Amino acid sequence: MLTQVRIIGAGLIGTSIALGLSAHGITVELSDSDLAAQALANDLAGAGQVHSPELVVLALPSSAIAMVIEREIALNPNSTFMDVGSVKTEPIEQIERSSLPLSRFVPTHPMAGREIGGAQSARADLFATRTWVITPTPECAPESLALVHELIQILGASVITLAADEHDRAVATISHLPQIAASLVAQSLSSTPPAWLELSGQGLRDTTRIAASDAHLWSEIIFSNRDEISPVLKTVHDELARLIQSLGDQSAVEGFIARGAQGRALIPGKHGGNPREYTYLPIVIDDKPGQLAAIFNECATINVNVEDLSIEHSPGQLNALITLALSASDAIVLSDHLSAIGWNVHAILK
Amino acid sequence: MLTQVRIIGAGLIGTSIALGLSAHGITVELSDSDLAAQALANDLAGAGQVHSPELVVLALPSSAIAMVIEREIALNPNSTFMDVGSVKTEPIEQIERSSLPLSRFVPTHPMAGREIGGAQSARADLFATRTWVITPTPECAPESLALVHELIQILGASVITLAADEHDRAVATISHLPQIAASLVAQSLSSTPPAWLELSGQGLRDTTRIAASDAHLWSEIIFSNRDEISPVLKTVHDELARLIQSLGDQSAVEGFIARGAQGRALIPGKHGGNPREYTYLPIVIDDKPGQLAAIFNECATINVNVEDLSIEHSPGQLNALITLALSASDAIVLSDHLSAIGWNVHAILK
Repeated sequence: MLTQVRIIGAGLIGTSIALGLSAHGITVELSDSDLAAQALANDLAGAGQVHSPELVVLALPSSAIAMVIEREIALNPNSTFMDVGSVKTEPIEQIERSSLPLSRFVPTHPMAGREIGGAQSARADLFATRTWVITPTPECAPESLALVHELIQILGASVITLAADEHDRAVATISHLPQIAASLVAQSLSSTPPAWLELSGQGLRDTTRIAASDAHLWSEIIFSNRDEISPVLKTVHDELARLIQSLGDQSAVEGFIARGAQGRALIPGKHGGNPREYTYLPIVIDDKPGQLAAIFNECATINVNVEDLSIEHSPGQLNALITLALSASDAIVLSDHLSAIGWNVHAILK
Repeated sequence: MLTQVRIIGAGLIGTSIALGLSAHGITVELSDSDLAAQALANDLAGAGQVHSPELVVLALPSSAIAMVIEREIALNPNSTFMDVGSVKTEPIEQIERSSLPLSRFVPTHPMAGREIGGAQSARADLFATRTWVITPTPECAPESLALVHELIQILGASVITLAADEHDRAVATISHLPQIAASLVAQSLSSTPPAWLELSGQGLRDTTRIAASDAHLWSEIIFSNRDEISPVLKTVHDELARLIQSLGDQSAVEGFIARGAQGRALIPGKHGGNPREYTYLPIVIDDKPGQLAAIFNECATINVNVEDLSIEHSPGQLNALITLALSASDAIVLSDHLSAIGWNVHAILK
């Protein structure tokens, strides 16, 4: 059972792990070559003195593991080690070259992050509802694996187990391609007249958000996974050439955008699991206190389960639109019920 | 001065214009060939009877202008007309082919939108702090221009005046390239094993958000602006080829990501402050009926106004994370109140 965890690296990931564990009563201590980051992170996390940690978390770039690993093995001769790097074959090779037996090493990759780094950007709930990949080697000891499962569960994430090479193939498409695409789009802004940038909308902002990410960190990730990334980029390059050729054919362009929408729809809900098909019930309410509570009371009364909810209203607007995400059958039941008692319910949306 | 506005098209843009104008006391009426959308939009906007509108807003695809324009000119013989299309040379050509004199037509393009369309997604503040491009022809009458300026000002946006052809060159990079990049990345998801998609993180989600946009609408935009888009895509295609060639050179990869970060930094902040600066209160609840109703009852009791809400939970998970968007002061009041009566409230997020 986890009681003490030592974390090497007081960046976004290491500090967020510390915050989450500390909030659950586990004693944590962070170490970083950047002493200011180390102090801030330990302070934020309410860190204590860790003498014999069950787990040592290597929350630093894979290339930096070699610099700290022998010292940490000597300091913590009985601990299990885990890393959190974005590419998984490389850290395993690093550990194979160290004196740590593979039985006590668990390679992991939490699928969470922010485009802003550092201890100051850390959040205790960074991993809540996210997935966390582990790529254990055949040598991995069950008790080491159990400690890592426990840490991930405490932080509110769900474990996915993959082979390291399959993980690296997957993230080439799922994570590294989006980064490269965002950087490509953002680069093209440098050659535009400044006045054009005044036209920037939310689409551009979202598509390029991660282009602001740390260049050194990402160059290391892309470089170390280049064998998997290269074929993915070549496919995209070919697809882009095909689009350029067919810009004069509107139905071909429509097919291109439609294939994108189909791909986008495959992204599961935030917590994994299949994307769910909800039915949406729009209700126009007066913008005054108590309206939402009244609707949720009606839902509870007739046993209707609200899966999600959006509220659209804005300052100066006299009413608000709430849209409830429901199962198809619940949507019909609730629509009938609310209409009968005088709510302004609109047609169900698929 | 604007007192009555007729809006053709009860989609996202048309309905959002209606909501914003209505909140400022202007009488609006929406017309749509989709009668359910028309009814919802008019209901949301508290629409009235418009008999002699100063302004008719063509809030429909440019290709559909031809279908409605002669009827609308006959119905509204003294009105100024404006459109809101994403490409600006084409609607001007459409109007030149109609019986409307160019003096009474103002081509415009609000730089706002959402990847979800329809009246049900409309917001009165969709345009607040955004830019709104107008591309008036030399024939445009000053009084027509003044009406359009007034509408844009009422909706809280800032006017940018550009020539139609310069607008179309600008949006090729600023708006159409991000759409194409998002669609390209999203397409690549279709050929991945479903298990890989479980690794999807926020970077992939943000980068591909607009890939969910309507394919027909976007094929029309891209097709009609293809002459401007083609050279932009060719530059990106060349840049991608160079990256593929240099994946084995970590410093070249770092330069690539750094150039993206520089381009990203050029995107200006939104104008005039941010009307939606909410504070977020995360609450972990048991996943059972009645929990949301109970929280909203507490909000109503202590007069706290919930601006928005997200729910994250997964099948088989025993709890859910709900995050309430609140004003900063309401967040503190509600956090204290819910904590005191035993709810599992987490630290407020900015």
